[in-house]
Amino acid sequence: MTTLGITDGRVLRPDLSVEEADVLVDREGGEVLDVGPDAGRDADERLDASGGLVVPGLVNAHTHAAMTLLRGYADDKPLESWLREDVWPAEAELTLDDIAAGTRLAALEMIRSGTTGFADMYFHVPRVAEVVETAGLRARLGHGVVTVGKDEAAAWADVEESLDVAETVRETSDRIETAFMPHSLTTVGEEYLREGVARARDLDVPVHIHANETRGEVDPLVEEHGVRPLEYAREVGLLEPEDFLAHGVHVDETEVELLAETGASVVHCPASNMKLASGMAPVQRLLDAGVGVGLGTDGAASNNDLSLLGELRDAAMLGKLAADDASAVAAPDAVRMATAGSADALSLPGGRIAPGEAADCIVVDLDAAHLTPVHDPVSHLAYAAAASDVRHTVCDGRVLMRDREVLTLDADAVRAEAADRARDLVTRAN
Amino acid sequence: MTTLGITDGRVLRPDLSVEEADVLVDREGGEVLDVGPDAGRDADERLDASGGLVVPGLVNAHTHAAMTLLRGYADDKPLESWLREDVWPAEAELTLDDIAAGTRLAALEMIRSGTTGFADMYFHVPRVAEVVETAGLRARLGHGVVTVGKDEAAAWADVEESLDVAETVRETSDRIETAFMPHSLTTVGEEYLREGVARARDLDVPVHIHANETRGEVDPLVEEHGVRPLEYAREVGLLEPEDFLAHGVHVDETEVELLAETGASVVHCPASNMKLASGMAPVQRLLDAGVGVGLGTDGAASNNDLSLLGELRDAAMLGKLAADDASAVAAPDAVRMATAGSADALSLPGGRIAPGEAADCIVVDLDAAHLTPVHDPVSHLAYAAAASDVRHTVCDGRVLMRDREVLTLDADAVRAEAADRARDLVTRAN
Ligand SMILES: [Zn+2]
Ligand SMILES: [Zn+2]
Repeated sequence: MTTLGITDGRVLRPDLSVEEADVLVDREGGEVLDVGPDAGRDADERLDASGGLVVPGLVNAHTHAAMTLLRGYADDKPLESWLREDVWPAEAELTLDDIAAGTRLAALEMIRSGTTGFADMYFHVPRVAEVVETAGLRARLGHGVVTVGKDEAAAWADVEESLDVAETVRETSDRIETAFMPHSLTTVGEEYLREGVARARDLDVPVHIHANETRGEVDPLVEEHGVRPLEYAREVGLLEPEDFLAHGVHVDETEVELLAETGASVVHCPASNMKLASGMAPVQRLLDAGVGVGLGTDGAASNNDLSLLGELRDAAMLGKLAADDASAVAAPDAVRMATAGSADALSLPGGRIAPGEAADCIVVDLDAAHLTPVHDPVSHLAYAAAASDVRHTVCDGRVLMRDREVLTLDADAVRAEAADRARDLVTRAN
Repeated sequence: MTTLGITDGRVLRPDLSVEEADVLVDREGGEVLDVGPDAGRDADERLDASGGLVVPGLVNAHTHAAMTLLRGYADDKPLESWLREDVWPAEAELTLDDIAAGTRLAALEMIRSGTTGFADMYFHVPRVAEVVETAGLRARLGHGVVTVGKDEAAAWADVEESLDVAETVRETSDRIETAFMPHSLTTVGEEYLREGVARARDLDVPVHIHANETRGEVDPLVEEHGVRPLEYAREVGLLEPEDFLAHGVHVDETEVELLAETGASVVHCPASNMKLASGMAPVQRLLDAGVGVGLGTDGAASNNDLSLLGELRDAAMLGKLAADDASAVAAPDAVRMATAGSADALSLPGGRIAPGEAADCIVVDLDAAHLTPVHDPVSHLAYAAAASDVRHTVCDGRVLMRDREVLTLDADAVRAEAADRARDLVTRAN
C-alpha cells in the first residue's frame, strides 16, 4: 500500500463542521484511512492544503457532458425552439469522435472545477466510458432513449441500446456504473417505459429520467393520463429508491410526498432551470420532506459551465426565492447537495471525508481577495468560492489535478480538438 | 503624451459586435485614441490581449464597499433580522481605519474582477475617497443618511453630513464624483428627504437611494402616503434623470412608466435580491420601456462577492425567470447593463470602447477549458466567464492590474489587514 497525505489544511467533515486536520489516503484502495492532526505527515506522497479547505469531491448528478461542444452556441431561446432549431440539428451531426472530444473537454473542466463524479445521459456511451476511464473520474453513465417520432422498430432498438449499455458499459472500469435512461416521461411512450424499466430491474441498475421540468411538459401529461407525472411514473415502474429524476421543478405536494415515500431522488439543476425559464424547484420543501436531493449542471448548452461550485451557489440563491424565505436552502444544505446528496442520489461512493469512505476529495483555496475574511468556510463554499479556487482534485485515491495542473488529460490538446470539432459541427449543422 | 496599446485581441464595440483590433490609449489623458487593426503596434507600453476579449471596464452601480469585512459573517437570514441582529451591531463598531481597510479589500477584489468604476453608499466617505484615489478606480461616492430612530438634531446632522460629503469629496480626485445618498424611502423621513434632495439640486449632484427592494417596505409606504413609492419619490423631488435607484424589485406598471418618463435609472442587484429573498425585478419590462438599467452587487454581506461578471450572469438568468421567457435579458443586454448601462446610470465616463471615450477597459481571457469552444464571445461574457478570467484592468489610461498582478495595491498587506480587522470587529460586536 502507498499513501497520499493531504496536509496542513482544514477538513470539511460529514456533519459539515470544519477542523484543522490532514487526510490520509490509501492510493491503491482508493479509500480514506485517517482524518486528524498530522495524519498525513508520513505519507508517501503529499498534497499541500495549507490555506485551503479539504472538501469531498463534488458530484454532478445530471449532465450531458459532450454538449460542451455547443456551449454558447444558441442562447436566450425558449426550450422548444432551442431544441428543435439548434440543439437537435447539431446533435444529429455528432460523430463518435465528436462525442469523445466533447466528453473529454467536459472531463477537463470537471477536474479543474473540483468535480470527481457525475451522471451522464447521452449517446455512444462506450466512447463516453473510455474518456471517463482515462480521465480518472467516477461516473454513472447511460444512453438516453427517445421514442416519440420514431417507428416501432427504431423505438425498440433505442430501448435495447440503453439496456445493453446499462448491462455492458459497467464492465469498463471499477469507477463506472450505469443506469437505464429514458429521456423523459413525455418523450418515451408508455409501453417502452414499462418494458425498459422492468428489464432495468432485472439488470439491477437504477433508472434516470428528466421529470417535471417545465409546465408545458406537465400539463399535457396530466391531461393524457389523468394523474400527476410522478404518479404516472410510479405506475410504469419508476421511483424505486435507487432512481433519480432530473429537475423536479413543477412537483405538487402529492408528488413531494410520493418522492419521500418511495425514496427516489431529485437532481436539482438551478442554472438550467433559470436559463430556460423553466421555473423554481421547491428545494427547501423537498429537503423538509426528507427527499434526497442532488445537484446537476445539466448540459453546457443550458448553463453554460459545468462548475458545481457555481451550481451550489445558484441552488442556495434560487432556493430562497422559491421559498420566499432568506433562511431557506442555507449554505450547509447547498454544500451537502453537491457532495453527499449527489453521491447518494447516484448510489456512487464519495461525498464524505471519513475513514472507510472513497478517497474522492478536493482542496479549495481560501487564500484569495474574494474569500477574505474567512468568518465561515462553509459560507464561502456556498456563496463566494469559484471553480478557479480549486487547487487539487483527487478521485479514488489518485491525484487528477495538482496545483491546477490536470495530470490525466493533455489540457491543450483536449481544448484544441474540441474547438476544431465544434467549429466543424456547426458548419455541418447549418 | 505617452500611449498604451492593448494588442492582438478582439474588442467588444459599443454596438456589442466583436472585432479583431488593438486599442490605443492616451495614458495621461485617460482616453481611447484609436481602435483598429495594429492600432497599438507602436505604443509606448503594451498589454497583450491575445486569446482575450477587450471589454469596457465593468461598473458596479450599487455597493457598500467596506462591507467586505462582513463577507460570510451572517448568511441565510431574513433581511430584517439580518440587519438588526448582525449587520447593524457590527457596523456600529466600525472605526475609520476599519472602513478604509474594508474598502481597500473591496478595491482589490474589484480590480481583480474587472471593475473599474463603482457607486458607494457608506460612512466616513473621505476615507473611502482616499482608498479610491490610491487604487486608481473611478467612483461616485456618498454618505448614507438614516433618520428613523434618531432625534431631530442627529437626523439633520446626518443629512448635513451627506450634503457636505457631496460638496467636498468630489474635490479629492478627477476620478471621484459624489451624490446625495438618503438610505431609502422608508428609513429617511419626508421632511429630511425634501430638504436634502432640494439642496442636492443646488449642489448639482445626483441622488442615490434604495427603493422598492422588498414587499415589506413597499406596503407600509403605500399605506402611509396613499401612492406608490416612486410616485412618492417624485413628490419629494426625486427621479431627476441623473438620479439612480438601487433594486426596483417591486415596481408596478405605473412606476415603470414613471421611470421611463423621468429618465431616472434603476440599479438591478440580482444576487442580493435572491440571497435576501426580496424578489425578482422586472428587468426585461424596464428595458422594453426604455428605462436606464445598471447593475450592482450590493454589499459583500448579501452577495457574497463583488464580481460583476457573476452579477451579469445572475441578471441574465434571473431576468428570464422573472419574465417567464427564456429569450428575456439576453446576453448582450446583460453585458450592456454591466458596462454602458451602469456608467450611464452613474453619469460616470466609461462603458464603451471607442475613440474619445474614457480609457477604462479590461481584457477577459477566453483561453480556458470552461470557455472552449468560442461560438460567441458575448455569450461567454454573460454565461461562462468568471472573475478569475480577467487578465488586465485599465482605468483612466492607467494599468491597475497586469497579468493578474494588481499594481496599485499591495494585495497581501490589504488582505492581511482586512482579515485582522474583521476578526477584531466581530469580537467587539459580540
Ligand atoms: Zn438534462
Ligand atoms: Zn444596498
